[in-house]
Amino acid sequence: MLSSKKCGVLVVGAKGAVATTLMIASLAERKKLGFDFRSPTTTHPVFSNLQLVDLPNITFGGWDISSKSYLESAYEHKVVPTHVVKELSEELAQLPAYTAVVARSTKALEDIISSNLTSDRDRILEYSQTVFSNRPFEDMVKSIQLDIVDFKERFDLESVVVVNLASVEEPLVNPSVFNSLESLRALISSNSPSITDAILYAYAALDAGCNYINFTPSVSGELPALMELAILRKVCISGKDGKSGQTLYKTILAPMLRDRALRLKGWYSTNILGNRDGLVLNNPDNVASKIQTKSGVLSSILGYDDFDHQVHIHYYKPRGDSKEAWDNIDFSGWFDVQMQMKINWLGDDSILAAPLVFDLIRLVSFSGSEGEYGVLPQLAVFYKKPYEVDEHDFFEQMRILIDHYRQYVI
Amino acid sequence: MLSSKKCGVLVVGAKGAVATTLMIASLAERKKLGFDFRSPTTTHPVFSNLQLVDLPNITFGGWDISSKSYLESAYEHKVVPTHVVKELSEELAQLPAYTAVVARSTKALEDIISSNLTSDRDRILEYSQTVFSNRPFEDMVKSIQLDIVDFKERFDLESVVVVNLASVEEPLVNPSVFNSLESLRALISSNSPSITDAILYAYAALDAGCNYINFTPSVSGELPALMELAILRKVCISGKDGKSGQTLYKTILAPMLRDRALRLKGWYSTNILGNRDGLVLNNPDNVASKIQTKSGVLSSILGYDDFDHQVHIHYYKPRGDSKEAWDNIDFSGWFDVQMQMKINWLGDDSILAAPLVFDLIRLVSFSGSEGEYGVLPQLAVFYKKPYEVDEHDFFEQMRILIDHYRQYVI
Amino acid sequence: MLSSKKCGVLVVGAKGAVATTLMIASLAERKKLGFDFRSPTTTHPVFSNLQLVDLPNITFGGWDISSKSYLESAYEHKVVPTHVVKELSEELAQLPAYTAVVARSTKALEDIISSNLTSDRDRILEYSQTVFSNRPFEDMVKSIQLDIVDFKERFDLESVVVVNLASVEEPLVNPSVFNSLESLRALISSNSPSITDAILYAYAALDAGCNYINFTPSVSGELPALMELAILRKVCISGKDGKSGQTLYKTILAPMLRDRALRLKGWYSTNILGNRDGLVLNNPDNVASKIQTKSGVLSSILGYDDFDHQVHIHYYKPRGDSKEAWDNIDFSGWFDVQMQMKINWLGDDSILAAPLVFDLIRLVSFSGSEGEYGVLPQLAVFYKKPYEVDEHDFFEQMRILIDHYRQYVI
Amino acid sequence: MLSSKKCGVLVVGAKGAVATTLMIASLAERKKLGFDFRSPTTTHPVFSNLQLVDLPNITFGGWDISSKSYLESAYEHKVVPTHVVKELSEELAQLPAYTAVVARSTKALEDIISSNLTSDRDRILEYSQTVFSNRPFEDMVKSIQLDIVDFKERFDLESVVVVNLASVEEPLVNPSVFNSLESLRALISSNSPSITDAILYAYAALDAGCNYINFTPSVSGELPALMELAILRKVCISGKDGKSGQTLYKTILAPMLRDRALRLKGWYSTNILGNRDGLVLNNPDNVASKIQTKSGVLSSILGYDDFDHQVHIHYYKPRGDSKEAWDNIDFSGWFDVQMQMKINWLGDDSILAAPLVFDLIRLVSFSGSEGEYGVLPQLAVFYKKPYEVDEHDFFEQMRILIDHYRQYVI
Repeated sequence: MLSSKKCGVLVVGAKGAVATTLMIASLAERKKLGFDFRSPTTTHPVFSNLQLVDLPNITFGGWDISSKSYLESAYEHKVVPTHVVKELSEELAQLPAYTAVVARSTKALEDIISSNLTSDRDRILEYSQTVFSNRPFEDMVKSIQLDIVDFKERFDLESVVVVNLASVEEPLVNPSVFNSLESLRALISSNSPSITDAILYAYAALDAGCNYINFTPSVSGELPALMELAILRKVCISGKDGKSGQTLYKTILAPMLRDRALRLKGWYSTNILGNRDGLVLNNPDNVASKIQTKSGVLSSILGYDDFDHQVHIHYYKPRGDSKEAWDNIDFSGWFDVQMQMKINWLGDDSILAAPLVFDLIRLVSFSGSEGEYGVLPQLAVFYKKPYEVDEHDFFEQMRILIDHYRQYVI
Repeated sequence: MLSSKKCGVLVVGAKGAVATTLMIASLAERKKLGFDFRSPTTTHPVFSNLQLVDLPNITFGGWDISSKSYLESAYEHKVVPTHVVKELSEELAQLPAYTAVVARSTKALEDIISSNLTSDRDRILEYSQTVFSNRPFEDMVKSIQLDIVDFKERFDLESVVVVNLASVEEPLVNPSVFNSLESLRALISSNSPSITDAILYAYAALDAGCNYINFTPSVSGELPALMELAILRKVCISGKDGKSGQTLYKTILAPMLRDRALRLKGWYSTNILGNRDGLVLNNPDNVASKIQTKSGVLSSILGYDDFDHQVHIHYYKPRGDSKEAWDNIDFSGWFDVQMQMKINWLGDDSILAAPLVFDLIRLVSFSGSEGEYGVLPQLAVFYKKPYEVDEHDFFEQMRILIDHYRQYVI
Repeated sequence: MLSSKKCGVLVVGAKGAVATTLMIASLAERKKLGFDFRSPTTTHPVFSNLQLVDLPNITFGGWDISSKSYLESAYEHKVVPTHVVKELSEELAQLPAYTAVVARSTKALEDIISSNLTSDRDRILEYSQTVFSNRPFEDMVKSIQLDIVDFKERFDLESVVVVNLASVEEPLVNPSVFNSLESLRALISSNSPSITDAILYAYAALDAGCNYINFTPSVSGELPALMELAILRKVCISGKDGKSGQTLYKTILAPMLRDRALRLKGWYSTNILGNRDGLVLNNPDNVASKIQTKSGVLSSILGYDDFDHQVHIHYYKPRGDSKEAWDNIDFSGWFDVQMQMKINWLGDDSILAAPLVFDLIRLVSFSGSEGEYGVLPQLAVFYKKPYEVDEHDFFEQMRILIDHYRQYVI
Repeated sequence: MLSSKKCGVLVVGAKGAVATTLMIASLAERKKLGFDFRSPTTTHPVFSNLQLVDLPNITFGGWDISSKSYLESAYEHKVVPTHVVKELSEELAQLPAYTAVVARSTKALEDIISSNLTSDRDRILEYSQTVFSNRPFEDMVKSIQLDIVDFKERFDLESVVVVNLASVEEPLVNPSVFNSLESLRALISSNSPSITDAILYAYAALDAGCNYINFTPSVSGELPALMELAILRKVCISGKDGKSGQTLYKTILAPMLRDRALRLKGWYSTNILGNRDGLVLNNPDNVASKIQTKSGVLSSILGYDDFDHQVHIHYYKPRGDSKEAWDNIDFSGWFDVQMQMKINWLGDDSILAAPLVFDLIRLVSFSGSEGEYGVLPQLAVFYKKPYEVDEHDFFEQMRILIDHYRQYVI
């Protein structure tokens, strides 16, 4: 069912590889370049009966600390083939890029600045000198919300979804200070150093009545304060950390071991990746957030945890945006006979992530328009660490997704 | 729920690696050696409420063309640790070994005889000279049925399940001659060369009122003539070809690709194995049966078939009973970006198969006692090519299994 | 030492992936596009003191049964990046393409024609109708030799090397008929069906005083008749079958096992490739030639052969010109403890082959100008099955190469 | 040439997996159990003409902080098959175990004590309470030397080799304090905390006229003070860190890349192992020593270092004494085309190491008896970081070894 709905999407980290891939896909579809932009919601029959927004009907924009253009960024990421980027360069130039706000100079940022990715470093440094001023947080919130209003009016949009695709932040030192909306507001008023960029954007977006998706491992939507705000404003909240690679097949193979009664002894996972995500994750503080969202899935599925589960992530420059994973799985059977399964995954991070973000935009937007609000637990299948859901078995999550949206099919 | 049920099992190919592993497990459990003989039915909660036969309560016996003892065979297979075999050698010696019948000298047999596995060759040669006589098939059927009666009486068993674990046979040249029970009986009477060992045993078993399980890729239970007989005798029939390794994870990963809308471009699978199964499969005629049961699963799950699917099997001596598989999976995403997943599986064939055969015995036996008969489609999850079932998605099959047996839980 | 030498090269199979890669590299270097065309002879210090011909000073041309242009062919092979091919399209159009001769319709050709690679099939079909006529072989030889003369004159070349890069042919049924030059000439005169394309081109080239390189597994240079001719004409002969991938690392890892006294138990090698080479090799007759050149290397290095060595090659479409290999190596140590090493090679066939062909052209041409003729045994390191050399240990071969050319360094 | 030479070997870390494997091999050979104890010196023809000590003629003994018996230790390591250990239990009990000295409580020791390997922890704890007393270092040296004298006399040995096979120690904070024998002696006299176990044993051994081999990554023989002592006492010194797995094939494949002019872009290496070595290496301080010996080999062979080389080591319990490595090698060819090679190594650490230690004993002992002393550079092929040698190319090292010992062949 082709839908004429129009939807606006503002991305935090709009010049990153996933965001620009999405933008170009939308423009390519408008121009009918003939690619097959398949996604779970376009291939599963249940969704064909729902009025979900179509890819060419989504208008993209966003914030990013990089001062490069979308075009320059897309060339640099080397995800979308160069000739396709070229063909859409004019359209790409039209998409709005708003000035990013920066609550504090994160370690991730410092890493990029101090790294030898020079071309970028210079620009960010220059940027940081003008922006990392002692601007009050309340001003920043207002600035974000004015951008949202401008975007909505300029493109005549019914609704706007804000999607977090920015670099992963380090875990919060004391998350309990965000237990109520009241205390969050007080921390913003006082320019508290415990406020992070991810929280600031999420607050501004929800407060402005936008649905909010956190596709990164950063802390935001799971804070009680933000959930309270989502309910107050009757908007949807969904997260976190897209399940696109190693955790995806982990939550598929663990149920196989469980249902064949094979005993897991150890699961060693290593990841090598060479994009900015990888560079940021090479920082032990940032990787902590990521590894937190990756652990736990196994014992939750298997029902026991006396096995050796390791997840390692390394920045490895030759890999570029491609992400390689290697898994070694040890399991045993009758008479304690030991067996092994090894997996080598050669994926392309942004190509795997973009269709999921597209689906989340469609579903969150649809659910919002149908009157759902607060956390959307039916979307667990898209995430490594779904908000308020303990189910990690991929096919169980898939069943929950389908069952939920089937109710809307007349 | 501990059950006091007793069950007899006669295995065709009783001295093979899977059969002797099962026998020893049962004896080890009787003697309480402390191993963890987990299987799907012992770990999934739904089955704990059903009166399924327990491992120590199963009495094993069977037929085999090898003249070695069970003990010698178990040592040779090197599947169960030597000291465990040793500890149970007396008990193993008590299990009945009936004289095998051989309808015709198969290529598999000729291969073993002409191969350089000398110790075995001599025995089989000697054996073949005394047994491959021009004995009428009707006599053979009677002989099998007398063995069943003897087994039942000797061990005071309520029921007997016959399980085919013999080496794979080549595909039938003209399966349509087995379209009715009448024509099958006529072919047996006339000692037709189209009769195979697998058919002969299945016929004798079903006719004698035994439930029948075909865990191999050989043709038997799917023939209309034998289905007719199963319904006539009100016994259960279940098959075929246990799904224990490469096809197992294939039917788990293909749904992942489908549900993430990733386009499969090619799936190259190769297998190396060094046990007798491997030797027999090295013969192009026999491997044909196996590859037939392995193909088709992908397109059935994915809904399209314009990809390059290859399955190769090679006898590789150093691997022994262990089975190694290597898979290379090519798939593409947005903008036709190509990605790869590679799998290396180091399994132990008999250790993977034995718990499945154990579960099939439990479930077929239970279903039979509850009045089910004919093909049991709920058991599809155990097979590469389930009789009369087109569903290959592992977790769909698992759901069907659980739903079926949940109805018996009070 | 930059050399001003000029050299002409005529390739049999000039529109294939390796040949066009070489041509474009030479043109790119003339135009100073800035690529790093490294090869063994450009990086090893011993060769920097010899007057070897440089890449831009080589003029390419050749024969091919395909009626496509070099440009079209290069685009199709997808080896050299598209924008580079584009930039050199004019220069590529200037290279001479002579009309191929075809001694007989080979199985390889029939396979391509009967395959579903339609665009090519039509052209080859059309081509074959006009060319596979009953033209006498002596005419064909003359035609080849006239092309050589024309090429030499047109580009004012001192010498011409003929390189066989055509699709692999099936092994000869009766190679002994080629035991003398006299008998070879008689077979050509009588248009004997035992004459193959590879033999015809080699004969014509050597007879015309050209040095000859066989980089394919086809039978030609090793025939006594052709060796006799090379000596008679005082030209060089070198082959066969470039060692660029799996056999390369095989002849490096086997010496490691030998020198660490680890006992090889089995080496299972499989190859998947999706270019025309792969398609042709999917034919059991052609693959026989290839597997012959790949076997033997292990036992020659290790000094024993009681291990299971298997080499499999499969055409797998998604792989394109890339060539993937998977090796499983089983070896044992003290107390017969079993260990394994597994290799996964993701190479690009033409990118690996082209620098070796370039080096062979340089070295054969240099040796020829220095008065060497007949088989050049010092070039064994470039080949899977070097003519008249039994040494397969890569580093031994490398030492022989270096020692040989060191004598020319003043 | 069977030799009647007798040789004594005292091992530091005598109850470890490598040491007990060696002891059992020697006893098995005395008892003629029929195993094939191949090693480089037993298989390469050049050594068959030298009077090297034979395996059964080596008498083993040593020091270890573990209070378990050799027998218990051998069972625990699970390297040598249980039934073989059993058969040699009496002989094993006869081998002398001297009381270890401990210069200081290392982090490695603390890790073992604080880990959950309980059975061992209790014993070591008990041990440490009685031994880690404030005993003067000069007493410890004397104690070691008295053990050497006792060993020599008890078994009537001409010479004794001391081999360091103890757990890896952390790198020295200030190695320059060991620049002269005089300063070393002063530090021992003053019980300086900069003295490590490895240094103490090496000092005592060399001072007592024993040849010394350091097969671990710990710092000892490379210190100028100890080299001075070796020359003074005219004994041999050899090290360090046995090259038995990942670095072995790294120093074989890097020359292949070099000699084929393929450009290395990145080499990612990860190791998982589950023995005590692995546990100790999980400590960041200890792993530093190991990674130091593993790095550098690539750039030394390739002649450039602008690639991403990473080595990771993780303790992974299910692996036991087996050591698994996974390598991903990225390299590029003409037109900057990227290619990959991946290696998965499933080795058994002690089985790979023991034959090398055996060879080192033979060769050091032989060289000593021929009048060589100080560092033996010809033995570089056995080590990851050979003392005073920069050559890492395995086959170059091999050539140096062979050439050196060929001079003794009459």
